[in-house]
Amino acid sequence: MKKVLFATTALVFSAGIAAAEVSVGGDGRMGVVYNGTDWNFSSRIRVSFTASGTTDGGLEFGGSMRADQATAATNGTAASVYISGAFGKLSMGDVVGAPEALFGDYYEVGYTDLSSMGGLGNDIQYLTGDNGGDVGASAITDTNTQQVLNTGPNLLYTGTFGAFSVAASMSDGKAGSTDASQEYAIAGAYTFGNYTVGLGYEYLDATVFDIPAPGNDPVVLGTGKADMVTLAGVAQFGNTSVKAHIAHAGKDLDIDYYGIGASSVFGATTVGGYVQHAKDKIDNTDVTWYGLGAEYDLGGGATIKGGVADNDISGSDMVADLGVKFSF
Amino acid sequence: MKKVLFATTALVFSAGIAAAEVSVGGDGRMGVVYNGTDWNFSSRIRVSFTASGTTDGGLEFGGSMRADQATAATNGTAASVYISGAFGKLSMGDVVGAPEALFGDYYEVGYTDLSSMGGLGNDIQYLTGDNGGDVGASAITDTNTQQVLNTGPNLLYTGTFGAFSVAASMSDGKAGSTDASQEYAIAGAYTFGNYTVGLGYEYLDATVFDIPAPGNDPVVLGTGKADMVTLAGVAQFGNTSVKAHIAHAGKDLDIDYYGIGASSVFGATTVGGYVQHAKDKIDNTDVTWYGLGAEYDLGGGATIKGGVADNDISGSDMVADLGVKFSF
Amino acid sequence: MKKVLFATTALVFSAGIAAAEVSVGGDGRMGVVYNGTDWNFSSRIRVSFTASGTTDGGLEFGGSMRADQATAATNGTAASVYISGAFGKLSMGDVVGAPEALFGDYYEVGYTDLSSMGGLGNDIQYLTGDNGGDVGASAITDTNTQQVLNTGPNLLYTGTFGAFSVAASMSDGKAGSTDASQEYAIAGAYTFGNYTVGLGYEYLDATVFDIPAPGNDPVVLGTGKADMVTLAGVAQFGNTSVKAHIAHAGKDLDIDYYGIGASSVFGATTVGGYVQHAKDKIDNTDVTWYGLGAEYDLGGGATIKGGVADNDISGSDMVADLGVKFSF
Repeated sequence: MKKVLFATTALVFSAGIAAAEVSVGGDGRMGVVYNGTDWNFSSRIRVSFTASGTTDGGLEFGGSMRADQATAATNGTAASVYISGAFGKLSMGDVVGAPEALFGDYYEVGYTDLSSMGGLGNDIQYLTGDNGGDVGASAITDTNTQQVLNTGPNLLYTGTFGAFSVAASMSDGKAGSTDASQEYAIAGAYTFGNYTVGLGYEYLDATVFDIPAPGNDPVVLGTGKADMVTLAGVAQFGNTSVKAHIAHAGKDLDIDYYGIGASSVFGATTVGGYVQHAKDKIDNTDVTWYGLGAEYDLGGGATIKGGVADNDISGSDMVADLGVKFSF
Repeated sequence: MKKVLFATTALVFSAGIAAAEVSVGGDGRMGVVYNGTDWNFSSRIRVSFTASGTTDGGLEFGGSMRADQATAATNGTAASVYISGAFGKLSMGDVVGAPEALFGDYYEVGYTDLSSMGGLGNDIQYLTGDNGGDVGASAITDTNTQQVLNTGPNLLYTGTFGAFSVAASMSDGKAGSTDASQEYAIAGAYTFGNYTVGLGYEYLDATVFDIPAPGNDPVVLGTGKADMVTLAGVAQFGNTSVKAHIAHAGKDLDIDYYGIGASSVFGATTVGGYVQHAKDKIDNTDVTWYGLGAEYDLGGGATIKGGVADNDISGSDMVADLGVKFSF
Repeated sequence: MKKVLFATTALVFSAGIAAAEVSVGGDGRMGVVYNGTDWNFSSRIRVSFTASGTTDGGLEFGGSMRADQATAATNGTAASVYISGAFGKLSMGDVVGAPEALFGDYYEVGYTDLSSMGGLGNDIQYLTGDNGGDVGASAITDTNTQQVLNTGPNLLYTGTFGAFSVAASMSDGKAGSTDASQEYAIAGAYTFGNYTVGLGYEYLDATVFDIPAPGNDPVVLGTGKADMVTLAGVAQFGNTSVKAHIAHAGKDLDIDYYGIGASSVFGATTVGGYVQHAKDKIDNTDVTWYGLGAEYDLGGGATIKGGVADNDISGSDMVADLGVKFSF
């Protein structure tokens, strides 16, 4: 339905085209990764598209999408669109939940972030956002054969008014016309001098599905409810930035989390690390995980970066990597 | 087979590289959609690549491809290449059939076009083009478990000579080395003042396949023949554009179609709509479907757009949407 | 885990972003292909991303990735990243083996290269690189239901020092944490006047897998070892370039290869061709295949190109194509 020589459609679209633009960037990396047994190669390149424009009334809008080299059956990923102005920014698509939008994660250790290597990684655990938060999918279902389905798109609002930052997010609770997980979250942060403190609340009314065999549709296994309160703070001391958080996941869950991370910049060198702890009071299990890394900025968008990560789960090995990261 | 330091290949390709160029654009949208039962979020971003160049002799060539955010197992979509000059334009790939190339569709209602929501949409029904025309796949097979396979690429010629526009299209009737549907179509249009009238003829020698389970190849279920005559006209009255068409699908089919649509531009506001009707004289069934929408141009490529669509099929609900569209 | 308003992560990444850049190019083609029985349409467009940057110390780095229109379940393909300097160039990803990096292939015949049409094509057969070399996958397993798995990424080093070019490549012998094929290769070339000669050695310690049904994991069927010695030479006589090679694959294989190709440029016209021969002394079978083609440069990146290819395998037909190629 393209290329129309004479058409009503063509006439009505002639105004308002093309003042906006798309910029192309990306990132690459190459190096070696130790998975606890062997050192292997690991490389990746990703291309990112960032679109932006401004309406006649001064509102900004745009979107972003990534084309990955991965051979998985996905096309553009991490895709979202937004419109913003004095009121703040409204984003829809693969967006994070409100607390994650304000508090982020700890210093990323290693050139691959090592979170896929058995280390639990620098991510702070959140309940909502981006097709199922970190806690939602794993802790509620407690097995690798179940998942909390939220097919998105999600909606995220963020705004900064003087020293205050606020965020709110929600899912629409539908996967097509099927009921899926409903998520709501709000968060706020206040900055005074070199200190920022923030508080977030997330609510998840989860529909739990099995993870289907290829070609089959997921089957609803049941439902569950969870919420999460997160208190986070960041402080800047000279070249050193310190972040800490404590969180509690309740309702059908009963898990306590806390963590602390720091990074320091010495000229072209940055060193950083984190320690996180989680205690599941229903299963009566707990885990501590940590990472330590360093990077050296070569300039022009290239960085040498490496790190080690481990946890106290019995039978789990330390993982490590060392490589070069590119930003285009 | 890349990056060759010394190679015959490299030598013979050294001439004629890179005078052509690729521009990156795209579109985005975000908003809410009513599916007859619930209001849900819907957002999308797509990146489009448009390549073009000119030979030393003044012929133009190029192509286009889209990278979608969709998670389906497809990469670039809507991909085609072309070469053009004083003789007209020859396109190959995911191209429409000849009548659709000249007559197009009705005014698109809603920011998502609502055609996937149970409304039958603003598309005029054609028999050929773009991996199976609108009528071909659904009407000939009459079930959701059969399809008319035309794996493309298709060939489309369009040309404009003074007041006359002509188009011709065909498929090659093969999916790899297997017989698949053969399509031919021609169309012409004549413009006088603010009026354009056109006539098109399409012929489909269809091979009907089942829709296979994932991982299996399609199985041939049978064959069928169909043709279609379409008469279309467009008139421009001041700010208002009106389009109408009548069509008949014959041979193994016996379906009559007619429709009318209009759109009017008032400054930054455009309103438009359509009504279409189809009567299948073999099944003795008929359906009328319609849509009404409006949009407001915010400038810079952003538009607020919404619409409602419905049909008279029993048990079917009205659908609606309201959102923002971006053009990059 | 994006869009962080205040975060340690954000702080430490503020340096060294964005001096590098990504350029967008691509290629297209359209025409007709004779598969031995029918003439069919064939068209394609691909978009390529080439990223590059320079560190403060003068090292160059970058990467490349392709977005194809193909409907197969792959995203970006032919993806690799590199870092280079006075020491040479180190690439990781979908890279070729060391001999192929130096010696390349014969003149590409036809606008589609015809290698997928039953002709065996202009590719020189190598043992390693790019997810399984040409010989490795087919000759070792000897059936279409087995494959030599090397999931990459592979590492390739190339360097040119005066008249000498050297290359070395290896795989990491792992597919995730599973043993996969281990590959090593080295190659060298020396240029004197219009002549270049080169020698390469490849070693493959193969793990042979079945080709699994969709949705299943590959199963290890056994292991095998192979090596390959390749001697290649190129000479330039005026407008004519001639390339030849002889090679032997040994250990679990016993195959002799030789081939010769040439191309000549007459103004905007280039003609070229190749003959290749392989003799499997274990199966006591042999095959000769050849191709002949011509192209005419239209300027601006557009070329008319066509060719014919055939082999002496009984029951196999000549294939041919004729079309237009675009380079953006």
